[in-house]
Amino acid sequence: MQPKSTIMDLPVYQPGKPIEEVKRELGLEEVIKLASNENPYGCSDLAKQAAMEELEANSFLYPDGASHELVQALAEFYQVRPEQILIGAGSDEIIALMTRAYLVPGDETIMATPSFPQYKHNAQIEGAVCIEVPLVNGTHDLEAMAARITEKTKIIWVCNPNNPSSTIVTRQQLEDFLAKVPDHVLVALDEAYFEYVEDEAYPDGLDYIDRPNVIVLRTFSKAYGLAALRIGYAVGDPQVIRAINQVRGPFNTTRASQAAARAALQDQDFIASCRERNRAGIEYLSREFEHLGLSYYPAYGNFILVDCRRDAKQLFESLLRKGIIVRGGHALGFPTSLRVTVGSMEDNEKFIRALEEVLAER
Amino acid sequence: MQPKSTIMDLPVYQPGKPIEEVKRELGLEEVIKLASNENPYGCSDLAKQAAMEELEANSFLYPDGASHELVQALAEFYQVRPEQILIGAGSDEIIALMTRAYLVPGDETIMATPSFPQYKHNAQIEGAVCIEVPLVNGTHDLEAMAARITEKTKIIWVCNPNNPSSTIVTRQQLEDFLAKVPDHVLVALDEAYFEYVEDEAYPDGLDYIDRPNVIVLRTFSKAYGLAALRIGYAVGDPQVIRAINQVRGPFNTTRASQAAARAALQDQDFIASCRERNRAGIEYLSREFEHLGLSYYPAYGNFILVDCRRDAKQLFESLLRKGIIVRGGHALGFPTSLRVTVGSMEDNEKFIRALEEVLAER
Repeated sequence: MQPKSTIMDLPVYQPGKPIEEVKRELGLEEVIKLASNENPYGCSDLAKQAAMEELEANSFLYPDGASHELVQALAEFYQVRPEQILIGAGSDEIIALMTRAYLVPGDETIMATPSFPQYKHNAQIEGAVCIEVPLVNGTHDLEAMAARITEKTKIIWVCNPNNPSSTIVTRQQLEDFLAKVPDHVLVALDEAYFEYVEDEAYPDGLDYIDRPNVIVLRTFSKAYGLAALRIGYAVGDPQVIRAINQVRGPFNTTRASQAAARAALQDQDFIASCRERNRAGIEYLSREFEHLGLSYYPAYGNFILVDCRRDAKQLFESLLRKGIIVRGGHALGFPTSLRVTVGSMEDNEKFIRALEEVLAER
Repeated sequence: MQPKSTIMDLPVYQPGKPIEEVKRELGLEEVIKLASNENPYGCSDLAKQAAMEELEANSFLYPDGASHELVQALAEFYQVRPEQILIGAGSDEIIALMTRAYLVPGDETIMATPSFPQYKHNAQIEGAVCIEVPLVNGTHDLEAMAARITEKTKIIWVCNPNNPSSTIVTRQQLEDFLAKVPDHVLVALDEAYFEYVEDEAYPDGLDYIDRPNVIVLRTFSKAYGLAALRIGYAVGDPQVIRAINQVRGPFNTTRASQAAARAALQDQDFIASCRERNRAGIEYLSREFEHLGLSYYPAYGNFILVDCRRDAKQLFESLLRKGIIVRGGHALGFPTSLRVTVGSMEDNEKFIRALEEVLAER
């Protein structure tokens, strides 16, 4: 009774420490978590209210598995056809479904490294060969990625902005890359942080979905502030969307999640306000890192990767003792860096003060 | 850019008609849905309140992917160890995860037919060979299922009570069967309707989880009335649970779902009350079917399969026009039967009156 051989050595996901646990273990009254790229401003009140009403009325009824109303709302919002949209329990689930629908043992899949770990994890479950192409200056090396395409390549993952480096590939870079990708290769543009990016050179993946081999992944977990409710979506060619739907569970998202997402989409003022405050946070953190003489990648998401030139694990633990949870780069392929979520300005300032103290200790 | 060959011919799940759509299409003011084995009494108020509070406070935060608190609550409730428990987005997801962790092309998996379709659907996605063993008198033929075990068998599914027939296998039958199953075969006891069964001969799957190859699936979607929130669990050997966790997404259930499930578990009075009212509903429906001269399988879940000796599709549509949604047996392998969820007594009576009228029409 052995599981399949491809998963024998795979890890079980180890989440970051919850705030309550850190408080308890370290006897701290206040703990700030800047570790999971969550939205410090919560979610739209409209979204919360819609979720509550749905829960109140319909907890005992199965959801609409096809998420008909949310698909309609997204189709209108983006001016695409409903059959171009798929709803998943976060981008996490959509990545898993894509690998389950497309990859068989021996297939190849190309991704940057370091990048979002779920591409590799899921490809490994399916027994696919992962071609990992190192970032250059924290950025996807799309030329090198294109050069690794073979007849066996099935999916290429482009995380834009990239997690954990928060860098982007530009419109020009993406277009040059897409021109080199043959028809048999699916390109997944993971745009989980899309709503935060303001740079004019940043491409909107939806501009490319007329190509049958481009699929765009977005989520309500980040700027929309609905991480707790597990809901995201893909936009792509109807045939690709159909193939993913074939492996999707019949009821993969909750009623509350669908209702919240639909309402959240209507509140673009909330998104604009979060974007603006996030930009101010990035500017503040960048400036402070410069004062401290620390290098960092220019950040486009709601997080920033800063190189502290010290052992990240020790830095992480020192900050933890001061009640600040960040993500240590040792777990992300950047052994001397920290990945810090942009928090409220108050929390950003507390983080910087704590970081100064920790760096001074040595 | 083709999906893998095993999924080419698979259907996309077609859910039953939503109440609102039926009202709109047929111009009906009242529509009763007895089609999805949902709990007509909703869920515990404690569960709803817990979900609301979680939503209010923490919508923007990722859930605890390991569902630590819910696992602890279930471990205490059942007096098992936390590492014997896995939380999934309904039994649906756990079935999918099990096939993804254990099945490779060419493996064999044994199931009754007709039974819950997700076993076969997911096994087909993985390219496994499905050995389907016909029900006898609507009941799993465990002897015939055991006789089909080979060296290639990986998983055997036992749906108890069985969906769609609502029949059970007894403790004696199950134990005779388990004695014949070799160690390399995983036995999944799907007990989605466990809380409804009162018969003394009905086995509690948890009595067998000391065998490393038995895993029990249960859900909060049925008696607990939380279908909207997609949450269920498996109890089994820690090594099997770990293998399934290796393919589980990092955050597979929502915060609201975890909170609701934990609170729901504490309200066993609600479950007892639903069980009692369900029993009265089964007794009423059985009696009425007998008056109408219709045969049915003795029902142990919250649904009953009745043979109307007419084309089920036509019957389904005739009932639909009267505002009653049931499940037509034509889609379930019983072309002259209807699968009816036990509703409130008022809805059960309306269904019987509508059925009488429809049967008299011919």
